[in-house]
Amino acid sequence: MKTINIQFDERSYPIYIGEGLISDYELIGQHLPHKKIAIITNDLVADIYLAPLINSLSPHKDVISIILPDGEKYKNTDSLNSIYSQLLKNKADRNTTLIALGGGVIGDITGFAAATYMRGINFIQMPTTLLSQVDSSVGGKTGINHPQGKNMIGAFYQPQCVITDVNVLKTLPSRELSAGLAEVIKYGLIRDIKFFEWLETNIQSLIEMNPEHLSEAILRSCQNKADVVEADEFESGIRAILNLGHTFGHAIEVAQGYGNWLHGEAVGVGMIMAAKLSQAMGWLSEADIERIISLIKHAGLPTVPPNISVDKYIELMMLDKKTKDGKINLVLQKSMGEAVLSDSYDPSKLRQILEQSAH
Amino acid sequence: MKTINIQFDERSYPIYIGEGLISDYELIGQHLPHKKIAIITNDLVADIYLAPLINSLSPHKDVISIILPDGEKYKNTDSLNSIYSQLLKNKADRNTTLIALGGGVIGDITGFAAATYMRGINFIQMPTTLLSQVDSSVGGKTGINHPQGKNMIGAFYQPQCVITDVNVLKTLPSRELSAGLAEVIKYGLIRDIKFFEWLETNIQSLIEMNPEHLSEAILRSCQNKADVVEADEFESGIRAILNLGHTFGHAIEVAQGYGNWLHGEAVGVGMIMAAKLSQAMGWLSEADIERIISLIKHAGLPTVPPNISVDKYIELMMLDKKTKDGKINLVLQKSMGEAVLSDSYDPSKLRQILEQSAH
Repeated sequence: MKTINIQFDERSYPIYIGEGLISDYELIGQHLPHKKIAIITNDLVADIYLAPLINSLSPHKDVISIILPDGEKYKNTDSLNSIYSQLLKNKADRNTTLIALGGGVIGDITGFAAATYMRGINFIQMPTTLLSQVDSSVGGKTGINHPQGKNMIGAFYQPQCVITDVNVLKTLPSRELSAGLAEVIKYGLIRDIKFFEWLETNIQSLIEMNPEHLSEAILRSCQNKADVVEADEFESGIRAILNLGHTFGHAIEVAQGYGNWLHGEAVGVGMIMAAKLSQAMGWLSEADIERIISLIKHAGLPTVPPNISVDKYIELMMLDKKTKDGKINLVLQKSMGEAVLSDSYDPSKLRQILEQSAH
Repeated sequence: MKTINIQFDERSYPIYIGEGLISDYELIGQHLPHKKIAIITNDLVADIYLAPLINSLSPHKDVISIILPDGEKYKNTDSLNSIYSQLLKNKADRNTTLIALGGGVIGDITGFAAATYMRGINFIQMPTTLLSQVDSSVGGKTGINHPQGKNMIGAFYQPQCVITDVNVLKTLPSRELSAGLAEVIKYGLIRDIKFFEWLETNIQSLIEMNPEHLSEAILRSCQNKADVVEADEFESGIRAILNLGHTFGHAIEVAQGYGNWLHGEAVGVGMIMAAKLSQAMGWLSEADIERIISLIKHAGLPTVPPNISVDKYIELMMLDKKTKDGKINLVLQKSMGEAVLSDSYDPSKLRQILEQSAH
């Protein structure tokens, strides 16, 4: 098992990464000072992993489970109110700990329920997708969607610990594993060329779900994210580099209809587009571009964007929160392993890259 | 104008107390670094104070207002969602500041909206009742009710500043002014005998709404609350003394039906009952009891509890969060100006005092 400690100004918490951790009461129990536990999960995850988790906890604790329907569309106030009601019905008090057993949706909504139930109770993250293992474990973002926008309601709230069991990835569809790898590759590109090189060597082994290599990839991704977030807990500055590929990617997700392109797939293609614009700035070479495309391809991800008109791209990219005075701020690569937020690119070069994409 | 600074570990904010402050843009503007402002208020307060506030802000800022129906029963998820929707419809972003213009309900729900909109935006408290001026300005408690319990959903979240305009009390019903005075008297009883003596001298002037004396009473109440809360921001220990009279008081409120006895009225009678039990402990004298009853009476508050059976009292008091292993923990008075949380009282003495009350 590997452990890293995430340090924020007042508090710190560990991320544990290893095999079979969701059944490891000796580990989990250390972060459960009180008797009452409520597991929050979705129906798909519950079918496979709820029983083993309950079995490991129930000899020691009073455990209830709250099962939501699976899917982003249930990350809403109705699900949140259902959590509150079931907690109250079961007399959950301030000493109750919530456990989020699931992917990003379950992690976000459970974290927000923990942040707001009786003005804040403890919670533990048990992420069950690669994306949530590398992305949602660090940063303290919790929340739900509003009909008028994603993640509009939420809070910054840190878990007691994150229990990342790489064995659960065995039941993850390969397409979702690849989507998670897009975010892993991102950390190499934005600030860790050594990690990028390590990924080039080990990408096949990751696709084949070698648990040692998966643990290493998750650890280094979390560590990189932690380094960025610790320097910028409330998102005022450099945290923006975590959005490499995301402005392009969000436009693709929206244009194609949410869910048709997975988030990681859209980000993967978006990183290629950002790399091409970085090349136009003179910051990356043709060889760099080829390396990036090759790694993304070997991760099982698409490398060619869907057919979207340039005007549609621009319209959707303008909606990004980083847009200022009508100019789209983009995360670009200053070099391999170094990202920068920039609005100093040539807009005609951006259009040219988008046009190539609109094949 | 008087100012006190409330200090928490990372942040501090000022409470300003004086006359005519809601129209004082020079003061308010210091805490509005950005252009967008959303005032949240209720229909009753809006009729009188919304126009002056908008008039002082609108030459400098983009101001929208969100008006909720008046009343505790609207402190719920529907009102909260209505706030979110109106903020989104008006394109409120992370640089928007919310202003809570109203009593405790408006302050609590606005603070919670600020804590959770886009993971946290700035807000300013402008309390318009004496109770909220002394009680909600300090401590960072925000939240809403759930059908299964009051204040079950919420967060600890501090405002940028509190603007307490004593002139708004001129339109407050005298019964509500008296109810606010119960909480003021509480601060004297729990930790500030000098303040208690000052209240004995000036109670008539407070009832007549002398602005100088009101400002002084609010300042000293806030300072006392701040001293307690700063030592115990997350409610683990001594903050409990702020609940003097409240365990009795809540039982009265519930037994009589919420709203029939005002919170402050029930707390006033509850403080007398707590004093009598403290006398049974040998901690207060008969003369002390008479002083307490006299001050509460002169504040325009009832001094005789409603007719409730002893068993009903005990049943309702057992619901208190401070109850442990079937024993009701009560805040009692060790002496005049000194409170203590205790479960070492004689239960038969408690029943005796409740019986006297069940006249």
